[in-house]
Amino acid sequence: MTFSSKLIEKSVEAFAALPGIGRKTALRLVLHLLKQDKSVTEQFASAVVAMRSGIRECRICHNLADEDVCQICADTRRDRSLVCVVENIRDLMAIEDTGQYRGLYHVLGGIISPIEGIGPADLTVDALLERVGEGHLKEVIMAISPTIEGETTVYYLSKKLQPSGVVVSAIARGVSFGGDLEYADELTLGRSIVARVPYSR
Amino acid sequence: MTFSSKLIEKSVEAFAALPGIGRKTALRLVLHLLKQDKSVTEQFASAVVAMRSGIRECRICHNLADEDVCQICADTRRDRSLVCVVENIRDLMAIEDTGQYRGLYHVLGGIISPIEGIGPADLTVDALLERVGEGHLKEVIMAISPTIEGETTVYYLSKKLQPSGVVVSAIARGVSFGGDLEYADELTLGRSIVARVPYSR
Repeated sequence: MTFSSKLIEKSVEAFAALPGIGRKTALRLVLHLLKQDKSVTEQFASAVVAMRSGIRECRICHNLADEDVCQICADTRRDRSLVCVVENIRDLMAIEDTGQYRGLYHVLGGIISPIEGIGPADLTVDALLERVGEGHLKEVIMAISPTIEGETTVYYLSKKLQPSGVVVSAIARGVSFGGDLEYADELTLGRSIVARVPYSR
Repeated sequence: MTFSSKLIEKSVEAFAALPGIGRKTALRLVLHLLKQDKSVTEQFASAVVAMRSGIRECRICHNLADEDVCQICADTRRDRSLVCVVENIRDLMAIEDTGQYRGLYHVLGGIISPIEGIGPADLTVDALLERVGEGHLKEVIMAISPTIEGETTVYYLSKKLQPSGVVVSAIARGVSFGGDLEYADELTLGRSIVARVPYSR
């Protein structure tokens, strides 16, 4: 791609450095900004810079936060006896979007993965044990992706949490809503039969 | 999508306002920036702001430029007797990328479209006629997309240029390289037979 403007070239390169954005898409974004009022670009840039410099990690749950404590931990209407352990903020947001959970969270910051060299010390495991150690929690829900690394992490955490006496649960596994039985993998379908629940309407 | 951080929400909304970027993609971009060093975000923002505030229109060809005159018009090695008329900067870049053209350009800024209310006065037609009127040009090449509006624009421009005596040409139409004759539309295939060229190897 040949640019006759260094300013455009630099902006295209800045956009193209973002994941999933190629140079053609980047050019389209830049030309779009050029068509808008100057203030649009200025607001866009200042929002991104303010976000990057202002964002913090919640002191309690390690969620991303604007203050010392995130909005979820600060919300007094939430059930403070329940903690849901998630891998990252994306999983946290996915659960929040269901609108079905009103407890608190604990963001691990990853999962145990010997291949990638990530051990418990790289995660917020100690902070979780400390929270449980305070004695206010009734239940810790493991909402970790059902991969080998995920299962390892859940197993490790449940072992670590055992002495505290807190109830450890895991999100239900089974055939998804709208899913076709025919195409469900054997492991999931097998588990969904073994872990069947009483039918209620 | 539920955000526990206003800073993140604002950044996601800023990205999602760009064309072709939804909220999920916007969140991925924001989380990517959070993982990088602060300076990455600052450089990204400053590149975009500098571009938007610094960019100008070339005084001669109406291409986007960093200076009063764009790099192409300022390049003394280019053939100054040849002008290629294009609809927009994207078409200009596409032609530049072929590496086959060493003349100058003229960016119309659109094409004549009565439906969208775009007439010759909204385009840089007068500037083109002025350039031709100066008498240094030998040939004006029409590189306009072969749509109805495009053909109308080419017809209008060629009529306007006729009195000046300058040679007006249009880019060749025909079956594309790698194209399958079977799937070429009738109009293109018909024209490519009528406008056949002597075979040379």
